[in-house]
Amino acid sequence: MSYEVGINYFSTMKIPFEELKAEFLRVLLKQNFEPQKAEQCAAIFAENSRDGVYTHGLNRFPTFVDYIKQGLIDSYAQPTLEKTFGLIEQWNGNLAPGMLNARFCTERAVALAKEHGMGCVAIRNTNHWMRGGTYGWQAAEAGCIGIHFTNTIALVPPWGGIDPRLGNNPLVIAVPRAEGHIVLDMAMSQYSMGKLMQYQGNNEELPLPGGYDEAGELSTDPGAIIRSKRLLPVGFWKGSGLALMLDLLVTILSQGKSTARITESTVESGVGQVFICIKDPDKETTSRLTEQILEFTKTSRPDTEGGIIAYPGENTLRTRIRNLKEGIPVREDIWNKVRAM
Amino acid sequence: MSYEVGINYFSTMKIPFEELKAEFLRVLLKQNFEPQKAEQCAAIFAENSRDGVYTHGLNRFPTFVDYIKQGLIDSYAQPTLEKTFGLIEQWNGNLAPGMLNARFCTERAVALAKEHGMGCVAIRNTNHWMRGGTYGWQAAEAGCIGIHFTNTIALVPPWGGIDPRLGNNPLVIAVPRAEGHIVLDMAMSQYSMGKLMQYQGNNEELPLPGGYDEAGELSTDPGAIIRSKRLLPVGFWKGSGLALMLDLLVTILSQGKSTARITESTVESGVGQVFICIKDPDKETTSRLTEQILEFTKTSRPDTEGGIIAYPGENTLRTRIRNLKEGIPVREDIWNKVRAM
Repeated sequence: MSYEVGINYFSTMKIPFEELKAEFLRVLLKQNFEPQKAEQCAAIFAENSRDGVYTHGLNRFPTFVDYIKQGLIDSYAQPTLEKTFGLIEQWNGNLAPGMLNARFCTERAVALAKEHGMGCVAIRNTNHWMRGGTYGWQAAEAGCIGIHFTNTIALVPPWGGIDPRLGNNPLVIAVPRAEGHIVLDMAMSQYSMGKLMQYQGNNEELPLPGGYDEAGELSTDPGAIIRSKRLLPVGFWKGSGLALMLDLLVTILSQGKSTARITESTVESGVGQVFICIKDPDKETTSRLTEQILEFTKTSRPDTEGGIIAYPGENTLRTRIRNLKEGIPVREDIWNKVRAM
Repeated sequence: MSYEVGINYFSTMKIPFEELKAEFLRVLLKQNFEPQKAEQCAAIFAENSRDGVYTHGLNRFPTFVDYIKQGLIDSYAQPTLEKTFGLIEQWNGNLAPGMLNARFCTERAVALAKEHGMGCVAIRNTNHWMRGGTYGWQAAEAGCIGIHFTNTIALVPPWGGIDPRLGNNPLVIAVPRAEGHIVLDMAMSQYSMGKLMQYQGNNEELPLPGGYDEAGELSTDPGAIIRSKRLLPVGFWKGSGLALMLDLLVTILSQGKSTARITESTVESGVGQVFICIKDPDKETTSRLTEQILEFTKTSRPDTEGGIIAYPGENTLRTRIRNLKEGIPVREDIWNKVRAM
């Protein structure tokens, strides 16, 4: 249930986790980040690469720094509370780094959940949270179920249309588990633009259809899909509907920018997010029920010899352990770029 | 973003809404339903057919009555409160009719939301809620956002496997809107077993791949997919992950039967459901933001001449208006069966 794309179309090397993190920290301090914020951002970028989400780890770091320089992200800003509706809190992200805002909102939702059983925090005017899974792992680590989602700039056509009008609006659902949390982190397009470009760079076909070519046919050719801009929503009409609903929920609850408004500028900034946390009702019962579900799921016979049925987060954990042991694979060109920053 | 399959492979006729409802009411009273419960169940079945969800309206009614006769559904039972965790309420459905339990849980979640901004009701030991959208429309009608989901018997293989181990676990998300609520109602399989059988009966190909054939190839042949039992999860690995997460949430929050346990008996009974409601923070702002999002989405050029981009629920409303005016299309054989009950 997880899908890892290699990063082998450029020359790669392996870097220890601590070295990667230290390098991010150095660059952010040079950008006048406050030390604690620099430390937190550096950790999140390094952890994303460590967990195999290279697109939102090292590979995205230069763009993040560029956004800081352009003033699209304000490293000095703090989220401020705008309103509360009962247990729902509405925050303004004030264009602070998206990861720090998302981390903060998850903390707030966890605190509300610990007090009231559940909590919901909506934030507007924030920035890209990088890997959504980060905040699922955070909620689960705090003993909570997490249901988090974000809107984005328009990337996917609605079902029946050809022009992108929907964000790929990632949805994260996390369940705490002592042996390794279960964390789903799924965008509403079958493949992200980053993944399509990776396949294109590798001269590889997609393993499954990822969009339409310019003739309107389902295609596994990443280049044809990039040219047509017709990325496939997951489950055809269903993912299209779900992406729309998530934008509605984010925009209504945060009273912030919708995908429509975000798309007015060509650079994604000022997005909205929702963080719902629910306290685990009973650790022991939950653990028993969770293992029952995973065990049953894994009794399905694999469709290929030696294949395994993985739960969401299982491959992440495997990649994490391997990368911590062997070093984190990085693209040499990007690594050198960051070192020269 | 919605998909309606014709019901024209058997001889059909059109019946006024009130006649359909009255017939359901007559049969349920004959089954010794208490009058108020009979009225509520009859209304839900008739409304499901009225809204074009024929598979969970008239077509399902004989099975419902059969389950009553078999004792799988207890028409006399009432849900009972088991526990509360903060704002989360955990109910036992006591095998009462699933629609009445779901209606009740939605009412409870709405009441909690009106008091605290949000509420969550989990129920175990309940029965099939028929059309999930029913409770989305109910929440929206009460001025709340609704996020509802259920588990089911195993119907879909997990990604990488060939034996069904996941429910198709429908997810409903509803947003209130004066001009017509926005209601997504999606199961985690690309096509339900009922839809596949409808296409097979019509000797029609699926418009898009719906599963794997016995050779393990993606297929649009409904018969081949039914034989292989390899229904496609929406978005391949992604819907497989989402189906698993929904079963985890339902089972953990209701402390009830997982898909694993439901599947131990061959008949689906004693399922669990979760109902999360959030009060609309501000009707006027929500309305403005919602129209902004729908307008933008609809500016995508249609992929076929004259095509329209519909929001979830838009086609439902269109079908409702048409069916109320022209009568509800019913399969003559099933209609006659019900009349003879």
